[in-house]
Amino acid sequence: MEPSRIITLTSDFGLHDPYVAMMKGVILSIHPNARIVDISHQIRAGSIIQAAVFLHEAFSFFSKGTIHVAVVDPGVGTDRRLIGLEASGHLFVGPDNGIFWPIIEDDEKQRIIHLTNRVYFRPRISPTFHGRDIFAPVAAHLSLGVDLEKMGARINDPQRLRYPKPKEKDDILYGEITHVDYFGNLITNIRRKDLDSFLKSSRPVIEVGDFVIGKLSPIYAEVEQGEPLALINSSDWLEIAVHMGRASQYIGLGKEEIIGAEVRVKKAREPL
Amino acid sequence: MEPSRIITLTSDFGLHDPYVAMMKGVILSIHPNARIVDISHQIRAGSIIQAAVFLHEAFSFFSKGTIHVAVVDPGVGTDRRLIGLEASGHLFVGPDNGIFWPIIEDDEKQRIIHLTNRVYFRPRISPTFHGRDIFAPVAAHLSLGVDLEKMGARINDPQRLRYPKPKEKDDILYGEITHVDYFGNLITNIRRKDLDSFLKSSRPVIEVGDFVIGKLSPIYAEVEQGEPLALINSSDWLEIAVHMGRASQYIGLGKEEIIGAEVRVKKAREPL
Amino acid sequence: MEPSRIITLTSDFGLHDPYVAMMKGVILSIHPNARIVDISHQIRAGSIIQAAVFLHEAFSFFSKGTIHVAVVDPGVGTDRRLIGLEASGHLFVGPDNGIFWPIIEDDEKQRIIHLTNRVYFRPRISPTFHGRDIFAPVAAHLSLGVDLEKMGARINDPQRLRYPKPKEKDDILYGEITHVDYFGNLITNIRRKDLDSFLKSSRPVIEVGDFVIGKLSPIYAEVEQGEPLALINSSDWLEIAVHMGRASQYIGLGKEEIIGAEVRVKKAREPL
Repeated sequence: MEPSRIITLTSDFGLHDPYVAMMKGVILSIHPNARIVDISHQIRAGSIIQAAVFLHEAFSFFSKGTIHVAVVDPGVGTDRRLIGLEASGHLFVGPDNGIFWPIIEDDEKQRIIHLTNRVYFRPRISPTFHGRDIFAPVAAHLSLGVDLEKMGARINDPQRLRYPKPKEKDDILYGEITHVDYFGNLITNIRRKDLDSFLKSSRPVIEVGDFVIGKLSPIYAEVEQGEPLALINSSDWLEIAVHMGRASQYIGLGKEEIIGAEVRVKKAREPL
Repeated sequence: MEPSRIITLTSDFGLHDPYVAMMKGVILSIHPNARIVDISHQIRAGSIIQAAVFLHEAFSFFSKGTIHVAVVDPGVGTDRRLIGLEASGHLFVGPDNGIFWPIIEDDEKQRIIHLTNRVYFRPRISPTFHGRDIFAPVAAHLSLGVDLEKMGARINDPQRLRYPKPKEKDDILYGEITHVDYFGNLITNIRRKDLDSFLKSSRPVIEVGDFVIGKLSPIYAEVEQGEPLALINSSDWLEIAVHMGRASQYIGLGKEEIIGAEVRVKKAREPL
Repeated sequence: MEPSRIITLTSDFGLHDPYVAMMKGVILSIHPNARIVDISHQIRAGSIIQAAVFLHEAFSFFSKGTIHVAVVDPGVGTDRRLIGLEASGHLFVGPDNGIFWPIIEDDEKQRIIHLTNRVYFRPRISPTFHGRDIFAPVAAHLSLGVDLEKMGARINDPQRLRYPKPKEKDDILYGEITHVDYFGNLITNIRRKDLDSFLKSSRPVIEVGDFVIGKLSPIYAEVEQGEPLALINSSDWLEIAVHMGRASQYIGLGKEEIIGAEVRVKKAREPL
């Protein structure tokens, strides 16, 4: 694969501390012409699922050959493996903890390498910061064109990620809220295709918290200000929102109850 | 106009979610050598005024030919137009909702294009994310040198922005607080020139919340720690601050009352 | 020194306001090929110590010749000097308020210039934003290869920084908490070498707030979820953490009490 010069970073390091900058310094010291783009550094601490979802949503908007580093790594320093992955025309570097599982699932021709060749690591490795001392330099070397195969042996048993999938029971589609975005919109784990195959020609009735929403809207502004709505968002997830307001404040659930809250989709009696 | 390779981004998307990164991926896929600079992604959700003020303050510090993308777009997907603007030697891309109005007002020779040519959009357009699917690719093409005129027809009736201007009445200049910055400083809608033309040779007395401030200071450190002061800030706005403290905490107004709070400038009896 | 094209920025400006973007615009207007990397813009307002520590930890991960701009500058506009520093193969630009003191201490061959040559400043200088009008353009010119010596006269009396150092008394090593990172981990002012020279072959007992920790762990995952631990972190500081939790929430100290809280290291009776 021809690498692009682009390296993306995803982590739960936040932006207050100098940890992300250290990774960028390491990358630019090895490849001064690399282009670094932050995907998010505000993943919930230790949330491998959130990092996996964000990266899966975002990576394909970058050029083929982009190298994506993901470091949500609560097991740093244990015997969890470090991996490099080639899938769907992109390269990925991070811990073998399920963070790349949705990407691995999507491409049956993927190739996974257990990163062991210390030539591509920093000489001194902190046991608690593999992002800086292993993943950053590996990504920089990949962006210079080093072949992933040189970095270790191939493996076929990557760590899977267990994440909640929507389920159908008694003619109700059950899902859950997985994320509250910056606008207070509630993202669910129900995809457009899940809805389509469940609803067929029926009109949906969507129940979550205090909201009962009787249709899908194409855009936020279709309802009055302050009214709740449901739509398929720009990443193809079912999303619950309030026009010009924060759905997370109006849903009638405590802040700690929202993530994981049940979403029920029923079929209205009359057709759409 | 010769485009610079620089594209700036302003939005209310926040930095938690992968939305901004998707826009950057789209831009770099079209123009791998574009340089992307964030102005702010923490505009108050839906605040067209705040985005308009920030962009108006910041754009001129970039080189001529820079392309500025602004996406605070509560009407996304409605029939609000998408526009490209050339003004004061810079290019601007975003919704026609008033976000560029202060820039349009400043340059009577500006040129506004209604963006309709889908050649420069992404093939599949989400109804809720025109930032990624329309504005980002349009900006990338502009940065490659595509002429704005090729992207649609010229219009002369852009959406205006109504924003509060200071008013003089009974020898008092009335303004309001428009922004609390990261330091807790209170930015008003009163410009240096408003003050000069109101005060002439008089010394000001500035009243806002619990503060009564009897002069303009050149710098923060002119008063004692913890004391309030007024100064003309680096963007030429009248600003109320507390030296080494957060004015927003000491002003005696509730958090929800500060934005929009009245600022009164009077003339002291004796001259400065 | 051969400058790299890289300029890092450290400030207490936050990411909401357009101030950082203005500095980037100024830099790129002078040197369009400069590479700008943010170290942190979320330094506690006015905390020269925090900026000094972050920069000292991070700078050496960048290539030699990198230019580091640091603007935590509560005395902006007073007669505090503006300095350029060459030390340990890197260049530094900022106020002479102690922000570079740990770097100056490390390299006895450093060179400090009092920046006075207005040729390298912006023509109009706001008394409250030297970051934009002086430090940014100076850094851009340095990155273009201008010699620091051309920018002013050499000085030998930089402002020192008083920061708390650990102290030994009655066979106890006393330190304090200096920082709570994004994970809620508590960073102390005790370095690996301080511990080594105090403990020699003894096992440590570390007391801070409600925690009593009887050993150093190599990694977070060595203890059970929710258990406290102590380790030497990736920047060689003694750090107190809770595995998969926020130490700052479990330590039994109020939010305002944590920074500065006493850390006591004692020697266990039996050897490690």
